[in-house]
Amino acid sequence: MTTPTYKHFNVTYPPEHQYVAHVEINRPEKLNAFFEEMWLELSSIFNTLSTSPSVRSIILSGAGPRAFTAGLDVKAASSPSGLLGPSPLDPARKALHMRRHILSFQSCISAIESCEKPVIVVAHGISLGLAIDISVAADIRVCSADVRFAVKEVDIGLAADIGTLTRLPKVVGQFGWVKEVALTGREFGAAEAERVGFVNRVFGSKEEAVAGALELAGLIARKSPVAVVGTKELLNYSRDHTVEEGLRYTTVWNSAMVQTKDVQAALLSGIEKRKPTFEKL
Amino acid sequence: MTTPTYKHFNVTYPPEHQYVAHVEINRPEKLNAFFEEMWLELSSIFNTLSTSPSVRSIILSGAGPRAFTAGLDVKAASSPSGLLGPSPLDPARKALHMRRHILSFQSCISAIESCEKPVIVVAHGISLGLAIDISVAADIRVCSADVRFAVKEVDIGLAADIGTLTRLPKVVGQFGWVKEVALTGREFGAAEAERVGFVNRVFGSKEEAVAGALELAGLIARKSPVAVVGTKELLNYSRDHTVEEGLRYTTVWNSAMVQTKDVQAALLSGIEKRKPTFEKL
Amino acid sequence: MTTPTYKHFNVTYPPEHQYVAHVEINRPEKLNAFFEEMWLELSSIFNTLSTSPSVRSIILSGAGPRAFTAGLDVKAASSPSGLLGPSPLDPARKALHMRRHILSFQSCISAIESCEKPVIVVAHGISLGLAIDISVAADIRVCSADVRFAVKEVDIGLAADIGTLTRLPKVVGQFGWVKEVALTGREFGAAEAERVGFVNRVFGSKEEAVAGALELAGLIARKSPVAVVGTKELLNYSRDHTVEEGLRYTTVWNSAMVQTKDVQAALLSGIEKRKPTFEKL
Amino acid sequence: MTTPTYKHFNVTYPPEHQYVAHVEINRPEKLNAFFEEMWLELSSIFNTLSTSPSVRSIILSGAGPRAFTAGLDVKAASSPSGLLGPSPLDPARKALHMRRHILSFQSCISAIESCEKPVIVVAHGISLGLAIDISVAADIRVCSADVRFAVKEVDIGLAADIGTLTRLPKVVGQFGWVKEVALTGREFGAAEAERVGFVNRVFGSKEEAVAGALELAGLIARKSPVAVVGTKELLNYSRDHTVEEGLRYTTVWNSAMVQTKDVQAALLSGIEKRKPTFEKL
Amino acid sequence: MTTPTYKHFNVTYPPEHQYVAHVEINRPEKLNAFFEEMWLELSSIFNTLSTSPSVRSIILSGAGPRAFTAGLDVKAASSPSGLLGPSPLDPARKALHMRRHILSFQSCISAIESCEKPVIVVAHGISLGLAIDISVAADIRVCSADVRFAVKEVDIGLAADIGTLTRLPKVVGQFGWVKEVALTGREFGAAEAERVGFVNRVFGSKEEAVAGALELAGLIARKSPVAVVGTKELLNYSRDHTVEEGLRYTTVWNSAMVQTKDVQAALLSGIEKRKPTFEKL
Amino acid sequence: MTTPTYKHFNVTYPPEHQYVAHVEINRPEKLNAFFEEMWLELSSIFNTLSTSPSVRSIILSGAGPRAFTAGLDVKAASSPSGLLGPSPLDPARKALHMRRHILSFQSCISAIESCEKPVIVVAHGISLGLAIDISVAADIRVCSADVRFAVKEVDIGLAADIGTLTRLPKVVGQFGWVKEVALTGREFGAAEAERVGFVNRVFGSKEEAVAGALELAGLIARKSPVAVVGTKELLNYSRDHTVEEGLRYTTVWNSAMVQTKDVQAALLSGIEKRKPTFEKL
Repeated sequence: MTTPTYKHFNVTYPPEHQYVAHVEINRPEKLNAFFEEMWLELSSIFNTLSTSPSVRSIILSGAGPRAFTAGLDVKAASSPSGLLGPSPLDPARKALHMRRHILSFQSCISAIESCEKPVIVVAHGISLGLAIDISVAADIRVCSADVRFAVKEVDIGLAADIGTLTRLPKVVGQFGWVKEVALTGREFGAAEAERVGFVNRVFGSKEEAVAGALELAGLIARKSPVAVVGTKELLNYSRDHTVEEGLRYTTVWNSAMVQTKDVQAALLSGIEKRKPTFEKL
Repeated sequence: MTTPTYKHFNVTYPPEHQYVAHVEINRPEKLNAFFEEMWLELSSIFNTLSTSPSVRSIILSGAGPRAFTAGLDVKAASSPSGLLGPSPLDPARKALHMRRHILSFQSCISAIESCEKPVIVVAHGISLGLAIDISVAADIRVCSADVRFAVKEVDIGLAADIGTLTRLPKVVGQFGWVKEVALTGREFGAAEAERVGFVNRVFGSKEEAVAGALELAGLIARKSPVAVVGTKELLNYSRDHTVEEGLRYTTVWNSAMVQTKDVQAALLSGIEKRKPTFEKL
Repeated sequence: MTTPTYKHFNVTYPPEHQYVAHVEINRPEKLNAFFEEMWLELSSIFNTLSTSPSVRSIILSGAGPRAFTAGLDVKAASSPSGLLGPSPLDPARKALHMRRHILSFQSCISAIESCEKPVIVVAHGISLGLAIDISVAADIRVCSADVRFAVKEVDIGLAADIGTLTRLPKVVGQFGWVKEVALTGREFGAAEAERVGFVNRVFGSKEEAVAGALELAGLIARKSPVAVVGTKELLNYSRDHTVEEGLRYTTVWNSAMVQTKDVQAALLSGIEKRKPTFEKL
Repeated sequence: MTTPTYKHFNVTYPPEHQYVAHVEINRPEKLNAFFEEMWLELSSIFNTLSTSPSVRSIILSGAGPRAFTAGLDVKAASSPSGLLGPSPLDPARKALHMRRHILSFQSCISAIESCEKPVIVVAHGISLGLAIDISVAADIRVCSADVRFAVKEVDIGLAADIGTLTRLPKVVGQFGWVKEVALTGREFGAAEAERVGFVNRVFGSKEEAVAGALELAGLIARKSPVAVVGTKELLNYSRDHTVEEGLRYTTVWNSAMVQTKDVQAALLSGIEKRKPTFEKL
Repeated sequence: MTTPTYKHFNVTYPPEHQYVAHVEINRPEKLNAFFEEMWLELSSIFNTLSTSPSVRSIILSGAGPRAFTAGLDVKAASSPSGLLGPSPLDPARKALHMRRHILSFQSCISAIESCEKPVIVVAHGISLGLAIDISVAADIRVCSADVRFAVKEVDIGLAADIGTLTRLPKVVGQFGWVKEVALTGREFGAAEAERVGFVNRVFGSKEEAVAGALELAGLIARKSPVAVVGTKELLNYSRDHTVEEGLRYTTVWNSAMVQTKDVQAALLSGIEKRKPTFEKL
Repeated sequence: MTTPTYKHFNVTYPPEHQYVAHVEINRPEKLNAFFEEMWLELSSIFNTLSTSPSVRSIILSGAGPRAFTAGLDVKAASSPSGLLGPSPLDPARKALHMRRHILSFQSCISAIESCEKPVIVVAHGISLGLAIDISVAADIRVCSADVRFAVKEVDIGLAADIGTLTRLPKVVGQFGWVKEVALTGREFGAAEAERVGFVNRVFGSKEEAVAGALELAGLIARKSPVAVVGTKELLNYSRDHTVEEGLRYTTVWNSAMVQTKDVQAALLSGIEKRKPTFEKL
């Protein structure tokens, strides 16, 4: 498969895992810190993978040994044209402009959540601020033992606004813990992240974590893509709705999806004791 | 108390635990797998127990040593008249029919949740697919050490649609874990289930688990039934609503319920250092 | 700072932690049990602290060695003029009056949640009934090793209506555990409370717990107050809304809040390697 | 088509309007007033018609010249076994029983709304109390010039609880008018009902109104049944949800429904300048 | 009945209408324009009337011949201590202060909506800006022929924030009309207000309007107060919720309210062909 | 101002109305019927105008004397590559593709609603199907006397899915009327549209309608753009939320927006009896 080349990301297709895409943030010399062009590109990548018939699951990691990402590139954001830069407008006009910027930034990161295919984040080393916003927009998180997470925004005078405060309480059920890390900005490591359920698994090194995430992504990629896409959609829908609403939406969703040939393919392969294969989406 | 006899379930009233009903799925030769007649009967049982004045709490288990339930009887579902059977209709008409079937199926399992009295599920051995849908519709789950749970639907090409994807994220607060088990269909055992809070307790054997569940049910059955019914209702309501809405609903609920004689009965027995008894509902 | 004197509470400002207020329930001879005058005063205290420019975080504890609080003073509540006292009205009129009382009581305890500044509860010893309603209205909970928690209302014939049933499922993600403790009224101790995430940390003694809470409150108080107030507001909003709604509300909130001078102050002090200081709210 | 015979209703299939069912309340000697057996039967009728392949739209009218329905048969309801009858229970237990009754009663009337096919109510003469609850559960209302509507419940000391207070504000957009008629119980006639949009059309006599409703039902019955069922479902869904939610649900619904052969049938008949015919649901 | 005296309002009890209170804005020399002290007093009045056993319905009008109210006293609001006055704070801190002010102001006007008893607004002459916020918080609106309404806020550079933009779309069903009057600030008169349903009735003069409103209030005051309070509560709840939610809340509400003696009183007086009387709330 | 040229639309800036943009659908030879390229372009236009500092209000009309728009170009949609074209996929995969198409189509039309500036639709002549979806996404609708509206989708076997079924019940408060026109597909003219509030005003001819819409747009464009943008946002938000939520969102919105210089500009010009002018957004 030939794919477009991206400027700030590597997008590869590990040959040993059919239908798995690997997205890598590629600005290691700056600890993979983000500036505007990067989140626009991130969004474009996930929108493309979302509907690509050759992709059934995705892992997202950071290049280099030191950081998944150090978060927002504060220097770039504070430049005259940046998000936090100066402005001659009155506070109301400035607020309207700011709101457009935040909406756009949020929308880029939300592309990970709205991507039809499951996304697994592999965090390692420095994983601060925007690293959390990105992680909670994904479906599953794993990390290496050396990871250093923090909801860092409070330390630059801001409430985190690109998704952390909205999604973290829905990813980790212990609300007191969520409050503590968001209000103090303190770091937490791999063991704590695993104990509260922020990550699903801890690996010894970044390399092992990437390998483990690819295994998991590969396992998902061998399932019926109709079932996988539906499972992600219905879980995300249910997180945000009453049980009553969740059940109703599910009936409508599955009224079409049950008509897939994948059910027969799966049942038949079960009888024949072999691995099923499924058509592309 | 004489009770109706059911075809696929045993419903008994253990004499040592007043006001406790024990519902047992009784198709052990097929690993308690479900076909349509069974979920209709299940619904009828829980609707009856819901308003029975002699019942204050319920446990639900599976007959035989091997399985709580292996889930949907896929063979029956794939028969010409079954849920997954062939159909000559166009996809839209087929979808309308399918939606009616799913609505009806969901509604039967939801009878466990809408049952006014608390329900404790005892899982053991094979507990796959529909076993999870049933478990999450209950209030409390315990299991034996040999349990093998899995959100199995993905392996037959389907997104689970009878409640698992809707209720599991509200039963287990670790959303990443929920995503993983739902997207991979992998098994998880008693220890993992306890760690994430899917079950409240693990017992050594099925027999101990049933005994332990009966103890717990008996403890609940000795409380004021007005308070117990209200507690279940308000917790389920609150799960699905904002704090603001939850508080408002609570005021209206308790404006009547505080008028129960059980409060005086409880306070008096407290002063007199004896166990209170409460009138039937 | 001179402050008003309260009748049933001590409100102090520990000199070693600037901007931290310490609220202490002060009726140790009755195990800090609450009657109406007390919850009205509690509400008044938190409404005042909410907008006080000298306060950036708050801890709430109970005076005396034996109890954080034994909950509702049932004797007072059962007196002729009390919440549970007799009434000559018909059940509908009685219900309308009861509803007004519950609304008012709820609103007083909710003052802890609606307080703009984070609140840390320090529980020790007896912590029953209303102790839980109060704790879950706070942001963070710590306790001493001797704590004895229980959702006790079921034992006096009532469904807990001052916030426990509404907020506890949003504080602890393991819904089966929440159901169990609410339906049985059984006690749970420090270790269990920590395991399920009800408390953030357990300390050896009440004194250590208060000291630890003050440390934590002090850490929060040294952050930008604009960021801290926003973080609390956005986390509470997000708990109760869909991700979509949470993100939208966040954009509007931050469109003004990003205009704070605290961002520059924080960035500058970061460059200068010193602690930032922030203006009063 | 042979159909079951009902005790309190006539269900007929006017030969001149294929696919139209006519349900008639048939207790004219008591002004079509309802007792429990009747609303259970009403529910059973609409549940059956909902999935009957031979029915695409329904009209509902009252037998006899004097009344659509005088509402609840208060005498029956006040009898010892009735909804408003005496009871030896304490107010809390009585409330729990009452709630079950109201839920069941509501659910029966809601069968009109949850019926997949559109329902047109034809009101004439006395149309009080429950007449409004029934009317607002339908999709379209027409009436004769002699109609006398009233939200009568306030005059027997009750807030209307079978749907009027819930649905009327969603049927008539003028909330002040809704408040007035619900708080005063005053009658309103055909002209006023038409002006505020409570009815779609006024006819000179009951006979003309029935004929007009049949015309309208016939027109609907000649459309694609897939499109008609979807239109009712999506309009009811949208009434209760945000625009965002409504659009999302619509995409899922139509992802299956657009696959109907009716689209091709309709387009082809358009080209061929003839009336399309559509397969049964 | 002796009642407190208010500074900016007259509160009277017209002897010919038992249980009706008449609240009159009393600053005619300034066209009844509001400053902060006034809305605090308004709130206090409606909170008192809400639970007063002697009050079952309320009318609200403006003193003097010229205006119901000219809205916010802009001069007072622009003073150094006013809502729109200057401030040395940074825009974020200023926003936090502003938000507290708006919350408090909104809460005062919402006292009309949260008042348990129905409120009828009588508008005449100049009725601008805040006049609309107040009117839409009431249940029913009538006016005199000379009324001049306008959603005036846009003309001073503001989006109306005390309730108009939130409640007007729920009071008038024609959303295009709502948009037009809110975006242009143009005046609309009595006939237009009646046509779109903003007012229930137009009277020739202010005196006739007050008399007509008192008649209507008197009619409501002669109904069962349990039924009236419930009807207001359930209509407001339903406006803001799905039909499903509205029905559920209604069952809980009426499970207590049906137990009122007013039902028997109403039924008995119906049999005896006389006007029922009902006990105080 | 130089502006981009569009292929299927004319976008002009009438010199007599500063800050007003006029968007004209420009495919008169096909009755302005839409194919995919057109709705993508429409979206791009409104996204651009949304943030253009030179635009404060917008009118949208159709070129040529015969039609605002005849709706979807069914011929194009039925072509092999079109929305309704044939497909070799199984029904589930086809449904997933279809859903993506509908989402994209909806999102393009929703650009009218999410455009920050108010949009006025001018309908004339043939205005079918998609004409309604477009109209209800706008803020205000006017029409000429010759207009022929219809919710036409039911006649091609479809439930309208680009916004009509979702938004029409929120634009017109008479739900029975909405049901009737959506279920029958019947035409309605200018007088009926005005009576139910679908349009704000009827003009004699298309030319007069365009002129009238420009007048209205010009009036809005002379108001404070901060106030206008806020009014549109808050009205749309409130339409979809409870009063409680609407008020809360409003406080946050206005906490920044009240800080605009437009308030002082408006107040000053009021004192000086002249028209205020406002800075660009």
